Amino acid sequence: MNEFSLIETYFHWNSSNLVNLGIGDDCAVIDIDANYQLVTSVDTLIESVHFPSNTSASDIAYKSLAVNLSDLAAMGARAKYFTLALTLPHTNKKWLSQFATSLKSLADEFGIVLVGGDTTRGALISITINVTGVVEKNKALLRSSAQVGDFIFVSNTIGDAAYAWKQLQNNQAPSEYVINKFNRPKPQLFLGQQLSDIANACIDISDGLEQDLTHILTRSNVGASINLNDIPLINEVKTYIKKTSDWCLVLAGGDDYELCFTVPVKNMNLLKALQNKNNTKVTQIGVINDSMVLTKIGSFDKPCCSYQHF
Amino acid sequence: MNEFSLIETYFHWNSSNLVNLGIGDDCAVIDIDANYQLVTSVDTLIESVHFPSNTSASDIAYKSLAVNLSDLAAMGARAKYFTLALTLPHTNKKWLSQFATSLKSLADEFGIVLVGGDTTRGALISITINVTGVVEKNKALLRSSAQVGDFIFVSNTIGDAAYAWKQLQNNQAPSEYVINKFNRPKPQLFLGQQLSDIANACIDISDGLEQDLTHILTRSNVGASINLNDIPLINEVKTYIKKTSDWCLVLAGGDDYELCFTVPVKNMNLLKALQNKNNTKVTQIGVINDSMVLTKIGSFDKPCCSYQHF
Repeated sequence: MNEFSLIETYFHWNSSNLVNLGIGDDCAVIDIDANYQLVTSVDTLIESVHFPSNTSASDIAYKSLAVNLSDLAAMGARAKYFTLALTLPHTNKKWLSQFATSLKSLADEFGIVLVGGDTTRGALISITINVTGVVEKNKALLRSSAQVGDFIFVSNTIGDAAYAWKQLQNNQAPSEYVINKFNRPKPQLFLGQQLSDIANACIDISDGLEQDLTHILTRSNVGASINLNDIPLINEVKTYIKKTSDWCLVLAGGDDYELCFTVPVKNMNLLKALQNKNNTKVTQIGVINDSMVLTKIGSFDKPCCSYQHF
Repeated sequence: MNEFSLIETYFHWNSSNLVNLGIGDDCAVIDIDANYQLVTSVDTLIESVHFPSNTSASDIAYKSLAVNLSDLAAMGARAKYFTLALTLPHTNKKWLSQFATSLKSLADEFGIVLVGGDTTRGALISITINVTGVVEKNKALLRSSAQVGDFIFVSNTIGDAAYAWKQLQNNQAPSEYVINKFNRPKPQLFLGQQLSDIANACIDISDGLEQDLTHILTRSNVGASINLNDIPLINEVKTYIKKTSDWCLVLAGGDDYELCFTVPVKNMNLLKALQNKNNTKVTQIGVINDSMVLTKIGSFDKPCCSYQHF
């Protein structure tokens, strides 16, 4: 199978009036609307680094797109189109078919269209996806606009994926629930879009709650205090923490792909309405202050070792 | 060095009023203009596959961006912004500094801005760049619009890079001229932009003249005949072909990043004016016909083995 038949067979599924010209030319051509701004982000996932070698093609495809969609969610954007650069050790029709089916299924769920790609041969599976979305002009949710007095929230629960990863590394069998949170994190696009009129600042938690919240603090020139006991945890993780006091799992485990955002007091009613309307789970974990540092209230007092890419 | 300081140190060089918000948030935010369409393309270069392991950081950076800019050139587009996904076995400050300096220099030459990226650790150097440009609405140069009777042209000379690569593989020392064509192909952006009112169809030659011209034929539902003796060659390559009859080097060597385009007879005066104005070298190598196949006139009569990615 050559590159062209591979693309034709597995990835030729454009269908959007956004895309004037998709796969099959030197570039894709995309129509634009002047009332919007583009938002774009790129993430690479590499075998053995970001997912275990025995991860299914379907889960690899899902996660590769999901972590990129999560960046769009953190901007309050709507997903529009993406490109795929796929490096594979060899071509396996079954693997490719499962990869493409899963990718298309997630893409369709969030209305995002594959417009171009490149396939190359390499020793390990590596997937680079570049997503592009749109926001109404000047409505993007930034990291840099947290204000003193804002309440700090996270969506859903934190640490689930890190707990699954820890169990895998220790040759324990994670529950279906946590392994699913690790392999198939749900991008919080709808929450992000609805937060764009409510939140002051927002980030998605990929490297760990502590490190990612610190990005908001640094870029907004503020500090914060959070209460460890307010961080929403599933029972499995609560039990693990009670036994080990390993708060690093929750604070620095990463791979959550939940949103961490700050809301001014005046918008708390809007947030409550949003919670009631959509049954969205968001939990207050702290408050923005002018201390310029992150204070962790609770039982945890050692410095945390966040995930480092190098 | 962690990912954030790496990006801050080497890649934080945004400066464009196109980019509303660049590196440092979840996504870049880009202003758009409704009179234009976006064109976008992605290409990956991998150590030992697309460049020898001993290639300098400076040449790797140049070529990674240049091959992507070449796709924009083939659409007649103006370059606007790009993202960079960089996989490295380890962080080497000297390497990174040379890589970033070379990347910025080429980016500045063509007015394209780095808006986002991702850095990951992997066994081999791998660079995925996603470029985005703009074309005036419905002015993109496509592969699919060649017409019977069009003359077929290529820019500059063909086979230079393939000749350098062949010499490297045979442990011969290529001349500075050909190794430079291999490592630092000049993206034909200005030519592409000027062709948008002159040419019917256009492609950039990356996989080899025969295969890439065939893409135009297939997508335009036409055939062509080309005359091998009309293909513009440098003297080194002419001598090599005379000695070996290895026309595959020219027809399937690839890595040329020249433009192959078709011009209707009525626009030949415009093309001549362009040639005179800019001292642009373009050479007619054949003509589009309705045969649905590619006929090669000249001494070459064996089927050609084009570069296959898998």
